[in-house]
Amino acid sequence: MLNKMLENVRTSAPLVHNITNYVTVNDCANVLLACGGSPIMSDDVGEVEDITTICGGLTINIGTLNARTIPAMALAGKKANALGHPVVLDPVGAGASGLRTRTAMDLLQSVRFTAIRGNVSEIKALAQMGNATRGVDAAISDKVTAENLDQMVRFAKGFAKETNAIIAMTGAMDIVADAHQAYVIKNGHAMMGRITGTGCMLSCMMCAYLVANPLSALNACAAAVAAMGLCGQMGHEQTMHAKGGNASLRNAIIDNIYNLTGEQLMEGVDYEIR
Amino acid sequence: MLNKMLENVRTSAPLVHNITNYVTVNDCANVLLACGGSPIMSDDVGEVEDITTICGGLTINIGTLNARTIPAMALAGKKANALGHPVVLDPVGAGASGLRTRTAMDLLQSVRFTAIRGNVSEIKALAQMGNATRGVDAAISDKVTAENLDQMVRFAKGFAKETNAIIAMTGAMDIVADAHQAYVIKNGHAMMGRITGTGCMLSCMMCAYLVANPLSALNACAAAVAAMGLCGQMGHEQTMHAKGGNASLRNAIIDNIYNLTGEQLMEGVDYEIR
Amino acid sequence: MLNKMLENVRTSAPLVHNITNYVTVNDCANVLLACGGSPIMSDDVGEVEDITTICGGLTINIGTLNARTIPAMALAGKKANALGHPVVLDPVGAGASGLRTRTAMDLLQSVRFTAIRGNVSEIKALAQMGNATRGVDAAISDKVTAENLDQMVRFAKGFAKETNAIIAMTGAMDIVADAHQAYVIKNGHAMMGRITGTGCMLSCMMCAYLVANPLSALNACAAAVAAMGLCGQMGHEQTMHAKGGNASLRNAIIDNIYNLTGEQLMEGVDYEIR
Repeated sequence: MLNKMLENVRTSAPLVHNITNYVTVNDCANVLLACGGSPIMSDDVGEVEDITTICGGLTINIGTLNARTIPAMALAGKKANALGHPVVLDPVGAGASGLRTRTAMDLLQSVRFTAIRGNVSEIKALAQMGNATRGVDAAISDKVTAENLDQMVRFAKGFAKETNAIIAMTGAMDIVADAHQAYVIKNGHAMMGRITGTGCMLSCMMCAYLVANPLSALNACAAAVAAMGLCGQMGHEQTMHAKGGNASLRNAIIDNIYNLTGEQLMEGVDYEIR
Repeated sequence: MLNKMLENVRTSAPLVHNITNYVTVNDCANVLLACGGSPIMSDDVGEVEDITTICGGLTINIGTLNARTIPAMALAGKKANALGHPVVLDPVGAGASGLRTRTAMDLLQSVRFTAIRGNVSEIKALAQMGNATRGVDAAISDKVTAENLDQMVRFAKGFAKETNAIIAMTGAMDIVADAHQAYVIKNGHAMMGRITGTGCMLSCMMCAYLVANPLSALNACAAAVAAMGLCGQMGHEQTMHAKGGNASLRNAIIDNIYNLTGEQLMEGVDYEIR
Repeated sequence: MLNKMLENVRTSAPLVHNITNYVTVNDCANVLLACGGSPIMSDDVGEVEDITTICGGLTINIGTLNARTIPAMALAGKKANALGHPVVLDPVGAGASGLRTRTAMDLLQSVRFTAIRGNVSEIKALAQMGNATRGVDAAISDKVTAENLDQMVRFAKGFAKETNAIIAMTGAMDIVADAHQAYVIKNGHAMMGRITGTGCMLSCMMCAYLVANPLSALNACAAAVAAMGLCGQMGHEQTMHAKGGNASLRNAIIDNIYNLTGEQLMEGVDYEIR
């Protein structure tokens, strides 16, 4: 079924509006084109509503956020909500600065997100802030392992329930959960952490998958996560074979996303449902 | 003669000031270096006049425009006009938001452009806005084809006359026109639409060609368009041969621009004059 | 000993805060990951103090500076000083606009820099501005050559003394000096000037080396300069072998930094101490 998610992106070519950081924006645009979508980047309050209106979905990434772009994020998010478009939040660096944590929390309050994708620390930072009085289990690790998997899946489902969004926590093992069900995806390779932007690219791609698969949000997100992981592990093998480094891996990942078929995804994906 | 245009860039190494979007800016800088020029990026009202003064030409690209950079575009454009430098407009997304369309129109009124490069929809958006009362032929397609070529050439020449600028409408077939004459260029490959930035890169390169060929504006623009198209189709072959994707194509295009000789351009260019 | 500098980066994985231009920021992030560090980019006054606090060092690069980011540069710099973190200044384009020269001078007055890296013209622009009344030797060339090497080394040591910072002047020959001693490094290749960002990447990498080697600032900077030069000349050979261009060279440099060992650095470095 994950193959169908991918193929629907190729056939419907969703246009995605991205308000994102200037570090990885080029890779985000190219990965959207690679997976079969189309990108528009726009972050000025004077135009984000117009832009989001002509798109099918919106990605809000708070990396390199600033006083000028923060209001544009909320404005675009509300407009996308009003239009019924899927909206993805990538809370880059939530927990690393007060501004990022506050901005992510404010966005969670003013915008309804279809999915939230981050690493474990970022997702934890959001969950802890939102639950300051109740308190999130402080014992929750910053890493998903075989040992804490049950606990982490429970945490992801709980936060999915609370936010009414798909939660995608990516790392060595990825968890993609709604309130009831979680995919645990074991694709990927550690070297992906040695390039900037795999997370940002994945968030944008997830938005394209959501636009193309409006009735299968969880499966769509899981397919995007699996596709990125699979393309990363294939990219790692290609890079090692060519004695390359992280620049080669970055290019290989985008190339692999470009060439990935639904059949290859089904053959290569390594997941379980919990 | 197009070879001479290219060679003049290599020998004179024009310095180009670019006010451009943050999505493709790195590729724009590298393509300027690849073709033999040098880039400076600068978009603050506090310095754009200084920067444009030490350059030979200016490219204004309105992708990711914002309230801070829009005034800098006009300021730099007027300064470049006062200095007699060529100025290229890339109206990215004109028609996609009111802000972009208005900004492009305002720039057309306050700055004298040597050349305007966009896809057919963007050029049409400008032409329609400028002619709201008279009306542009609404039947004009968003695509140049063998069937509508005569009409599209007429449209490009007409808009060139109206703006007193070279009009470069790029797509499956490219039209580069002044009021009297048009190059129809058939180089390129559809896969170029699957990477972000070929248009942006071309606008910057066109500016370098204009600086290096001040007395041959139409030929200079046509040579830049042909060079990009040729390097794209060569890049497509190289990418297919290596089983790569759009990241490989991006790198191949810049590499090909780096290595392209005037002789190769003359051998590979596929054009007619109308 | 330069090998030890490199290895300390690999083992300590320093986190570096970068306020930098949007042209080469992706390459800066990837080169920091390649050398063994980790990058955070952040430029808003509302968060730069938080971000710099969780990092080990700060790079301030004034390319594409603007009214919004200039105050953030000073604020982050002062915070990093208060925390005792190394701070690197990359005065991109000092001398090219009044705003850049003034901003660099203001930063030199409000922030204590551990190192300043630029090309000869940029370093000269700072030295002349700072010494307007005394006057810097106007005869100083914009290029380090075998003929003027003694004079250039003297100039670098003098400016290092005046600023109490390591001065890294990079070009065909690189000079890395404190007030007493200078490394003259002859690695590198002229083709590195045909890609954007080798200087910016080097400044960020230098900061990672400084964080990892707090008691050996001069050696740390020299090792970073030598590593970049060596990876550039290796990259040039690889690029020529593959008939590539400047896009290939950019990727090769980052890949080479990723794979470079301390042993290779010691074998490949070509330097003398003056």
